[in-house]
Amino acid sequence: MSFNSFGHMFRVTTFGESHGPALGCVVDGCPPGIPLTVADIQKDLDRRRPGTSKFVTQRREPDTVQILSGVFQDERMKQQVTTGTPIALLIQNQDQRSKDYGEIRDKFRPGHADYTYWAKYGVRDYRGGGRSSARETASRVAAGAIARKILTALYGKVTVRGALVTMGTQGIERFDWAQVAQNDFFCPDPKAVPVWTKYLESLRKKGSSCGAIVQLVAEGIPAGLGAPIYAKLDGELAGALMSINAVKGVEIGDGFEASFLSGEENADEMRKGTKATKGKPRFLSNHAGGILGGISTGQDIVARFAVKPTSSILTPRKTITVDGAETSIITKGRHDPCVGIRAVPVGEAMMACVLADAALLHRGQVG
Amino acid sequence: MSFNSFGHMFRVTTFGESHGPALGCVVDGCPPGIPLTVADIQKDLDRRRPGTSKFVTQRREPDTVQILSGVFQDERMKQQVTTGTPIALLIQNQDQRSKDYGEIRDKFRPGHADYTYWAKYGVRDYRGGGRSSARETASRVAAGAIARKILTALYGKVTVRGALVTMGTQGIERFDWAQVAQNDFFCPDPKAVPVWTKYLESLRKKGSSCGAIVQLVAEGIPAGLGAPIYAKLDGELAGALMSINAVKGVEIGDGFEASFLSGEENADEMRKGTKATKGKPRFLSNHAGGILGGISTGQDIVARFAVKPTSSILTPRKTITVDGAETSIITKGRHDPCVGIRAVPVGEAMMACVLADAALLHRGQVG
Amino acid sequence: MSFNSFGHMFRVTTFGESHGPALGCVVDGCPPGIPLTVADIQKDLDRRRPGTSKFVTQRREPDTVQILSGVFQDERMKQQVTTGTPIALLIQNQDQRSKDYGEIRDKFRPGHADYTYWAKYGVRDYRGGGRSSARETASRVAAGAIARKILTALYGKVTVRGALVTMGTQGIERFDWAQVAQNDFFCPDPKAVPVWTKYLESLRKKGSSCGAIVQLVAEGIPAGLGAPIYAKLDGELAGALMSINAVKGVEIGDGFEASFLSGEENADEMRKGTKATKGKPRFLSNHAGGILGGISTGQDIVARFAVKPTSSILTPRKTITVDGAETSIITKGRHDPCVGIRAVPVGEAMMACVLADAALLHRGQVG
Amino acid sequence: MSFNSFGHMFRVTTFGESHGPALGCVVDGCPPGIPLTVADIQKDLDRRRPGTSKFVTQRREPDTVQILSGVFQDERMKQQVTTGTPIALLIQNQDQRSKDYGEIRDKFRPGHADYTYWAKYGVRDYRGGGRSSARETASRVAAGAIARKILTALYGKVTVRGALVTMGTQGIERFDWAQVAQNDFFCPDPKAVPVWTKYLESLRKKGSSCGAIVQLVAEGIPAGLGAPIYAKLDGELAGALMSINAVKGVEIGDGFEASFLSGEENADEMRKGTKATKGKPRFLSNHAGGILGGISTGQDIVARFAVKPTSSILTPRKTITVDGAETSIITKGRHDPCVGIRAVPVGEAMMACVLADAALLHRGQVG
Repeated sequence: MSFNSFGHMFRVTTFGESHGPALGCVVDGCPPGIPLTVADIQKDLDRRRPGTSKFVTQRREPDTVQILSGVFQDERMKQQVTTGTPIALLIQNQDQRSKDYGEIRDKFRPGHADYTYWAKYGVRDYRGGGRSSARETASRVAAGAIARKILTALYGKVTVRGALVTMGTQGIERFDWAQVAQNDFFCPDPKAVPVWTKYLESLRKKGSSCGAIVQLVAEGIPAGLGAPIYAKLDGELAGALMSINAVKGVEIGDGFEASFLSGEENADEMRKGTKATKGKPRFLSNHAGGILGGISTGQDIVARFAVKPTSSILTPRKTITVDGAETSIITKGRHDPCVGIRAVPVGEAMMACVLADAALLHRGQVG
Repeated sequence: MSFNSFGHMFRVTTFGESHGPALGCVVDGCPPGIPLTVADIQKDLDRRRPGTSKFVTQRREPDTVQILSGVFQDERMKQQVTTGTPIALLIQNQDQRSKDYGEIRDKFRPGHADYTYWAKYGVRDYRGGGRSSARETASRVAAGAIARKILTALYGKVTVRGALVTMGTQGIERFDWAQVAQNDFFCPDPKAVPVWTKYLESLRKKGSSCGAIVQLVAEGIPAGLGAPIYAKLDGELAGALMSINAVKGVEIGDGFEASFLSGEENADEMRKGTKATKGKPRFLSNHAGGILGGISTGQDIVARFAVKPTSSILTPRKTITVDGAETSIITKGRHDPCVGIRAVPVGEAMMACVLADAALLHRGQVG
Repeated sequence: MSFNSFGHMFRVTTFGESHGPALGCVVDGCPPGIPLTVADIQKDLDRRRPGTSKFVTQRREPDTVQILSGVFQDERMKQQVTTGTPIALLIQNQDQRSKDYGEIRDKFRPGHADYTYWAKYGVRDYRGGGRSSARETASRVAAGAIARKILTALYGKVTVRGALVTMGTQGIERFDWAQVAQNDFFCPDPKAVPVWTKYLESLRKKGSSCGAIVQLVAEGIPAGLGAPIYAKLDGELAGALMSINAVKGVEIGDGFEASFLSGEENADEMRKGTKATKGKPRFLSNHAGGILGGISTGQDIVARFAVKPTSSILTPRKTITVDGAETSIITKGRHDPCVGIRAVPVGEAMMACVLADAALLHRGQVG
Repeated sequence: MSFNSFGHMFRVTTFGESHGPALGCVVDGCPPGIPLTVADIQKDLDRRRPGTSKFVTQRREPDTVQILSGVFQDERMKQQVTTGTPIALLIQNQDQRSKDYGEIRDKFRPGHADYTYWAKYGVRDYRGGGRSSARETASRVAAGAIARKILTALYGKVTVRGALVTMGTQGIERFDWAQVAQNDFFCPDPKAVPVWTKYLESLRKKGSSCGAIVQLVAEGIPAGLGAPIYAKLDGELAGALMSINAVKGVEIGDGFEASFLSGEENADEMRKGTKATKGKPRFLSNHAGGILGGISTGQDIVARFAVKPTSSILTPRKTITVDGAETSIITKGRHDPCVGIRAVPVGEAMMACVLADAALLHRGQVG
């Protein structure tokens, strides 16, 4: 019954349209006593922010977040901490450019939520895509920053990070986490960066767009999170990642490739724990992506998701108007030629939220 | 907070272990007045039943379902109908063969939930896999049969069906729904059947196993089901399909392939409705798999999921015991060499349940 | 969205009609490793069972419970324990007497759910009241027995008990818990027992009925359970107790009386802890009933609920038929002249369930 | 799992502390196309606003609400309507008076949430009561205004209104809805007003406080809302009303009085419908308060709740400090001597929210 909420014990409710006065979220269920400042959240928001390169939308939004509730510090306390009450976060919209929305007001963009939204509700705030705009994902990133703090408070060092492993038809040859922050694409292969740059530049110039595949990895998550049937950690991750705008596929571990392996190949063999694994069992491979039977194994948790190409393009496409007349459409304006790029921090945030939720649920059910 | 439930308004709670006295489910939220008999449910259960060919587990379970509540007929009524109260379904286990569980009692099968279950709960009913056994999916299929009745009651003819499109490394060349019921594999290509038979027979004989990819299609679903953010129809489908045992990947429409397309290629262009579409807009393609922005378009809804190879195999694999000692394991006994086969009716059931739930939610929110 | 479920982390889903083959429940979220046998549950069911005295319905139901899942013991384990999987409980109906339901099939009993059920669903299993029968409360009592085991596992000795403090117009003068199990009425005042006996006998003979007020007390619950706004411990209790058949009012602590006190009188003053309170603050009174701001104080938790008189009576009452014609009705058959009596173990069970749920939620959110 | 949310399909999540920058709520699940302006909400907020008479807190808060999302109007639309997306409402705090919080920072007010909040979370924003302040109820009133619009859109004229039927030890002799808006107490008896004025003035002067009983009535609700077991309309109402600050008891219809009646007296006899009842059955009385078996009867829905006296008083009370030392406390500052007064619009709002939620659920489940 969660049209605009996700999570169970760590529960995030988002609100806001692309061109309304503000967007934000209410994060409910954050444990008390966790250090939290605006800077903790802003840091992640800045990685998702529009207008940071020519490869993302040119909309100018500082995405400055304000904490309205749920934290406290007085003169006796060393730092500002969460209180256990709901944390409301607000981001004012700044650059709702006054423009003519005639095209998308009256016509449906093929491949976009325009038509389905109208078919469902019979009314829509079409300005900038309204609620279906990727701007909503800023709220997710903000919530994800809080989720990270919870994971760290519970388990020590936990890392949840992502990278673009393909951009459109272009792949990578090596994977180096250290490179991801060094380019505009969250690309882990420095040699791919100039190739991707040229590729995306070319698409952007002709008003086309491309998709992407994002890989996410969480390190430091202990064994035991999740549940075997419908609160499966992989089921929750799949639902969460598929809920990101434009995502059309989700994989855990080897994913679709696993279906081509034999049982022998796919089995992640086990050895007894070592000092490096803190006595926990050691696995000789990780085809499973750190999840077996819906429950974490203690290995890295690995997921991938596929983002379709942006539907707002300059090539004319056949469509119909709100009144049912046939026409064609091109979409001018400010758009990401590859929404997969900014989906990286969004994916990380969703993974962090799912893991924090699973951690609290586990503590509740098992202790 | 739904460890063993799924759905929101159409809500299914399952229970039961592989070797306990019985398994079943409670289906809550079914509207009143819907015709429902045991035969409606048994029909689907029989498609998932074990022991029907040499390619599935040899466990002998008739999987006879009993309706304990939620339906009624008196002498004045033409037929038995649902009453709006919870429908409890019970399936007695018959063939809990008395055997030595020593191997899986004391050792963890690599690639199986054995270890994670134990890591989480510290105690487990290891007999036949306990709760993590695929026997649990019988309850899902039973619930799915009720979901189909709801969809038909609401929208007229709705078809939700599935097929195996790859078995291990073997694919198909053509897709003919009429063939799916004609072989042991839910295979839509009659030419592939003998190839698959030989392939699986060979794997079975050497005690190996393989994975599979299942495709699901729902026809007859109107535009408007789902919601744009976290009750997305595709997000719900992804979570539901990923919750099926051994599933490692889920796609909607073109899925991962969509990420390789350009915006022009991926756009499903629109034309005005015809008599064939009952006046509803017509789409020139269906890359989106019938879902845009989390809401159904009125086209066929298309999903695929990848099943990993069965982890219970005869090739020895390195593992550890419950006490942490290193050892190796082979798993004898009754297992499906390709669990993907029987996953077809399970996938259909999950899709039907998600759609019925979305239909009731839509009726509640929008009318 | 919980038509037939209650609780959040400790979640109970019940099913079954008065005259169907069986009733029962699925208890989801019980932590693993908690000792649980059929006897633990049967003990509580026997206190609610019909047919135990002439003052309750003469329907003969042994209410023998069967555990279908969720527990396990092997030869290495000292005792049967919960496994963390859903615990399904089944109670077969035995005495669905073959009789003429003509009266309640065609007419609505004033004060009963007959009319509203029909108005809502348009179809109903009227036999014995169907789903609205008090037989459904057997499932609650069974679930409550599991809740008690959880509370004991978490906090050591926890007692949740109830007593009838008024029966119809008859009250008590003293309150002695030791007396409650010594009579047919859960009456805490031995002097009231003969008075109540005569009173109820008289009502029963003339085919009338009466209501009752039940008091519940939980001892041994630590401070901190609940939450300040909508997961309030008192809000949850109120919802749970009001969900019991025939309940029309709920109070916490002084309840309605508190509204007549001044702030000075109502304040439960505090002193520092003693050995008897294990160092926890000591309160000089308990007007609040052990809950302040929705959170437990560590004192006894005290609630009361009012049960209306049974609506199935022998005095003719004006009513209408299913077809809208005016008529009158008397209800013969097997009924409790005072349903409040058997509501005592039901109330205890609901309180235990709410507390177990709050305990798990607290552990999840705060640790 | 709803620490700070209530409702199922019409779901309200509130946030904010008494002395934080702002408070507000997100209203999820409001159907699309419902006319909604700030004025619709402000009207109700103004009835709950502090500082309107000397009998309520002197804190100066205009409680001006801002709609951040979920509504839309363009030049082609006659009026602003809801879009089906979440409606976020924001109320800035204005009068967070800079003062010394030493007393409640270090000491617990007996009868207040101070201690339990601290016992649960180990940290708290004590300024003005923080999250446990009655300021949170402004968000509920705002959400309730939207709920009213939904009820009207669905059923035509629906009225949900409340009145104070006792103030402390003072009652009323007649009940005239027309009088309720004519005095500072929501008192329905004009003769009681001067008596109550004198009574409350006297309490206020000596720094004492009193409780109250509030009666709520909803007119225009059709038969069929609710569900027979755990989504009972009365169970939901009880939980919702008990969740209001300082409430200690809830009744439906005759409530506790019903337990003193005989079955004959309590039965609400039925006659066939008339033009006045639009053909729906007519009841000769309404002991049930418009709810039987958890489902509405089509009559007026009647509930009452008891509010305890304000715990912030000037009479010294024994207490302890945060560090466990014994001391005493008096609470200066701005407080309502009778919080029951401003609880009237809050109670109305909660009832409206419960009814709107039940209406949408009913539409979803039954059609």
